[in-house]
Amino acid sequence: MDAIEVETVAEPTLSDPVLVEGLPGVGHVGKLAAEYLIEEFDSELVRRVYADEFPPQVSIDEEGVADLVCAEFYAIETGGQDVLVLTGDHQAGSNAGHYHITEAFLDVADSFGVERVYALGGVPTGELIEEYHVLGAVTDADLIPELEDEGVEFREDEPAGGIVGVSGLLLGLGSRRGLDATCLMGETSGYLVDPKSARAVLEVLETVVGFDLDYASLEDRADEMEEVVGKIQEMQNQGAQMPTDDELRYIG
Amino acid sequence: MDAIEVETVAEPTLSDPVLVEGLPGVGHVGKLAAEYLIEEFDSELVRRVYADEFPPQVSIDEEGVADLVCAEFYAIETGGQDVLVLTGDHQAGSNAGHYHITEAFLDVADSFGVERVYALGGVPTGELIEEYHVLGAVTDADLIPELEDEGVEFREDEPAGGIVGVSGLLLGLGSRRGLDATCLMGETSGYLVDPKSARAVLEVLETVVGFDLDYASLEDRADEMEEVVGKIQEMQNQGAQMPTDDELRYIG
Amino acid sequence: MDAIEVETVAEPTLSDPVLVEGLPGVGHVGKLAAEYLIEEFDSELVRRVYADEFPPQVSIDEEGVADLVCAEFYAIETGGQDVLVLTGDHQAGSNAGHYHITEAFLDVADSFGVERVYALGGVPTGELIEEYHVLGAVTDADLIPELEDEGVEFREDEPAGGIVGVSGLLLGLGSRRGLDATCLMGETSGYLVDPKSARAVLEVLETVVGFDLDYASLEDRADEMEEVVGKIQEMQNQGAQMPTDDELRYIG
Amino acid sequence: MDAIEVETVAEPTLSDPVLVEGLPGVGHVGKLAAEYLIEEFDSELVRRVYADEFPPQVSIDEEGVADLVCAEFYAIETGGQDVLVLTGDHQAGSNAGHYHITEAFLDVADSFGVERVYALGGVPTGELIEEYHVLGAVTDADLIPELEDEGVEFREDEPAGGIVGVSGLLLGLGSRRGLDATCLMGETSGYLVDPKSARAVLEVLETVVGFDLDYASLEDRADEMEEVVGKIQEMQNQGAQMPTDDELRYIG
Repeated sequence: MDAIEVETVAEPTLSDPVLVEGLPGVGHVGKLAAEYLIEEFDSELVRRVYADEFPPQVSIDEEGVADLVCAEFYAIETGGQDVLVLTGDHQAGSNAGHYHITEAFLDVADSFGVERVYALGGVPTGELIEEYHVLGAVTDADLIPELEDEGVEFREDEPAGGIVGVSGLLLGLGSRRGLDATCLMGETSGYLVDPKSARAVLEVLETVVGFDLDYASLEDRADEMEEVVGKIQEMQNQGAQMPTDDELRYIG
Repeated sequence: MDAIEVETVAEPTLSDPVLVEGLPGVGHVGKLAAEYLIEEFDSELVRRVYADEFPPQVSIDEEGVADLVCAEFYAIETGGQDVLVLTGDHQAGSNAGHYHITEAFLDVADSFGVERVYALGGVPTGELIEEYHVLGAVTDADLIPELEDEGVEFREDEPAGGIVGVSGLLLGLGSRRGLDATCLMGETSGYLVDPKSARAVLEVLETVVGFDLDYASLEDRADEMEEVVGKIQEMQNQGAQMPTDDELRYIG
Repeated sequence: MDAIEVETVAEPTLSDPVLVEGLPGVGHVGKLAAEYLIEEFDSELVRRVYADEFPPQVSIDEEGVADLVCAEFYAIETGGQDVLVLTGDHQAGSNAGHYHITEAFLDVADSFGVERVYALGGVPTGELIEEYHVLGAVTDADLIPELEDEGVEFREDEPAGGIVGVSGLLLGLGSRRGLDATCLMGETSGYLVDPKSARAVLEVLETVVGFDLDYASLEDRADEMEEVVGKIQEMQNQGAQMPTDDELRYIG
Repeated sequence: MDAIEVETVAEPTLSDPVLVEGLPGVGHVGKLAAEYLIEEFDSELVRRVYADEFPPQVSIDEEGVADLVCAEFYAIETGGQDVLVLTGDHQAGSNAGHYHITEAFLDVADSFGVERVYALGGVPTGELIEEYHVLGAVTDADLIPELEDEGVEFREDEPAGGIVGVSGLLLGLGSRRGLDATCLMGETSGYLVDPKSARAVLEVLETVVGFDLDYASLEDRADEMEEVVGKIQEMQNQGAQMPTDDELRYIG
C-alpha cells in the first residue's frame, strides 16, 4: 500500500458540489451532523481513503467482516445543492500525517470540482448548554456577512486554541489552494454526544448550502440525550458523581 | 540496512500453503499457538524479516549469541495441509511501521503462493474463563458458515475496538490484495498467559486448515497455569492482592 | 503542500541584515523581544514558512479568519542596521522536524545575505529575579569580548542542559554554514511572562547590532507584570498557593 | 544538513583497528570506559557524526561556545593494537533513527578497515556490588572461549531484556555485515556512576584487544565514588532516604 491510497467506489457526476466534513471530535458534533446527512438523503459511497498514518486497525461490522480503517466520501442528493460528505472514525497519528491526509482529502474534493468547503465540529463550553450557538471561522472575511445573517457568531480570537486537526487544515490548506472554506462549530458542553449541537450546525448549513432537512430522527436522538442530561442533573443535585463514559456514549 | 529486509534462510517447495500468524498479544494466545505448531511439527525456518521500525535491540540466546530483533516464517509439515507460520517477539513502533511490516509479511506469503491467512490472537474478557469460546472475524462473509460449524462465534461489532496491529492489518491489507483472511480470537481473562485459550484456537484451526495435532504438552502447560490460577483464586478468597507480573508470566 | 513551504510576501532590498530570532520559550523572553522589535519599528512581513512538522492547526484572528500555523520573517528598519526578525507561535514536533525547519530558516536568512544571527531566549533561575543578567553562547570564541563589554556573561558549561530547539540549532547548524551566531538568554524566574528579561536582552542587542529602541511600552508591560509579581509575593507571604497559569499569562 | 552527516576531522592511517564503543547508559559504564581510553592514551578526534535523529540541541563548552550534538570517533595509539573509540552524549530519538545512526557508525568503522567491534556498557543488578563481574554477548559463538578465559561470563538468556540501543545494534547489524562484535557489560548497581565497573570492563578489553592501561586516575574516581557509597550505606543504616540524583552524579 502507498502511504495514502484513494479507492474509487463510484463515479457519479456532481454539479459544483460543496464539501461537508464531519470527523470525530468534541461532542461528536461534526460526525453526528455528517452521518445525519448521509442517512437522511439518498447517499452513495464514492471514495475510500486509506492511509498508513491512520491507526493499524480494522473495525468489525455487524456480520463479523473486517474493514480496514479509512475515511469515506459520500455523494448525497439533497434535492438542492449537490454535496460531498467526508466522514470517518479516525484522525492521523502525527503532525505530518494530518497534513498529508488533509491534502489527499482536498485532492479528492478537487477531482469533483469542489470550490466551497464546510468543516463541522463542536466547541466545548464546559457547562450544559441552554441555547445552542454556532461559532464560525472562515478563510476569507467576505464569507462572514452571509454567515452572520444566519446567526453564526464570530468572536475575536475564538476558539482560543485555534482549530486543530483535519477541520483546521481544511481551512488552512484549503485557503492556500484558493478554496472558500468555513468551519461551523456548535457549542457543546464537551461531556456528551450532542445531537442538539449537531442540529444547530445543520440548520446553518441547510440555509447557506441550500437544501431542506427533516430533523425528526435527530430529535429522537436529542430526546434520548435529554434523558441522560436529566439524570446527570438529578445526580448532580444529589451530589453524586458524573456518569461513566459508557453511560454517556451509548448513542455514539 | 534497508527499512525492511527479508533474509532467505531456506527455500522449500510448499503446496498451496496457508499462513498462520501468532505474535505477542493478549494472553499470549496467538504466539503460544504459533510456537506450538512450530514445536509439534517438523518445522524449518525459511525467512527472517528485519525492520528499522522494530525496537533497536538484540536478544541473547542460551549460548550468549546476540540475534537482531526480527520476525520469522517457518514452513511446517503437518502431514495434511502445508502451513507457513509467522511469529516473533515484537510489533512495530509507529502507525506507518505497522502497515509497512504487514505489507512485507504479505509479500513473503505471496512468494510462497499463500491465498488463505489465519491470524491468531486473544480477546480479553476481564474475568477468569470457564468455557473457552473462540471469536471470529473475516475478510469475506462467505467464510463465516464453515467457521460457525466449528463453533467459532461471530458477534455483532465485536471485538468493540476492532482488531489492532499485525493481526488486524493481515485482514485489512490482505483483503485489499484479494486474500481470504480470518482472525481467530480465543477468549482469555487477559491477566495470564493462557495455553487453554491457545488450545481452543488451535482446535478450530486444526479442522478448518486440515491437520492433526497432539495437545499433550500444551495440556502440561495448561496444568501449570491451572495451579497458578488456583493460587490466585485462593488468594482472592483470602482478600489478598493479585500476584505480580513475574509470578504470572513464568511460562511466557 | 511540500514538507516545508516558504511563501514570499514581500521582497525588500536589505543591506547586510542580521537575523534576530525569538520564538516561544522560557518566560516568553525571546518572543516578547522579537515582537517588540516588530511593533516599535517600521516592519514588513516578508516570508511565511509553513511546515508539516508544525502542529496541524489554524489560529483565528480578531475577525474570525483562519491562518495556517507558520513562522514569519519581518524586515525592520531600525534607522541603523537592517534587521530580519524571525518569530512564530510553534516549534516542530520531532527531532528531525527541528533540524529541517531550522535549515529552512537559515536558507531564508541566506537569501537575504544574512551573515550574523542572534537567537533570543530566556534561561530559568527558579526564583524571582532582582537584577536581570544576560547569559551568552556563541559559535566562535572571537565573538565573546564584544559581548562581555556589554555585560553579557559567559559561564562555564551554562546553561547546563545546553540550548534546545530552534535557538540552539541556529547556532549549531549556523556554525556549520560558517555564520557567526550568538544566543542571548535573559535570566528569568521561568514562572512568568517576563518583559524585564526581554528588555535586558534587547538592551544588549541594541548596542551590538546598532539601533536605538524606546522602551516605554515595554515598561508598561513590565509594570503590569510587577503588579502580578507583587500579588504573588503577597500570596506567598500568606502561605497561599501559586496563581494559576491563566492569571500569570494574561499578557502572553 | 542531510539526515546524517559525517565530518572528517583528521585522516590518520590506522593498522587494522578495532572499534570500541561507549555511549551513555546504565552506570555510565560504557561512556566512562571510552572516555578513559581517550584521556589516558594519545588520542585524535577523527570524525564527527551529526544526525537529525539526535536531539535538536547544542552543548555549551567551558568558554561559552556552542557545539551541535554529535557522536565522535577518536583514533588512539595504545602502543599495541590500534583502536578507534566511538563516544558521545546522546542516542537517537526513534526506532528507525537508532538503526540509521548505527549503520552510519559501522560505515565509518568500515572506512578504517575495522573488522572487530567491542561495545561497552553496564548491566544493572539493583544492589551495590562487591565483586565486579563482566557479562558478555557475541555475534559468533567462536568468540566465547577467549573471553571466558579472561573471566567474562556468558549466562543463558542474559541480560533478560536483550541489549538495547547502539550497543545492541552494533552486534545485530555488525553481524549482518560479517563483523565479529562483542558486548562487554560490567555489572553495576544501576544507581551510581560506576568507575569500578568501567575498570572491570577495561581490564577485559586490555587483554583481548592487546594494550596496557594505567588505572591510577580511574582509581581516584572510584575512591571518590566509594565515599559516596559509604555515605549511602551509612544513610541506609540510619533509615534515611537515598541521596538525590545530583549528589550521585557529581562525577558524571
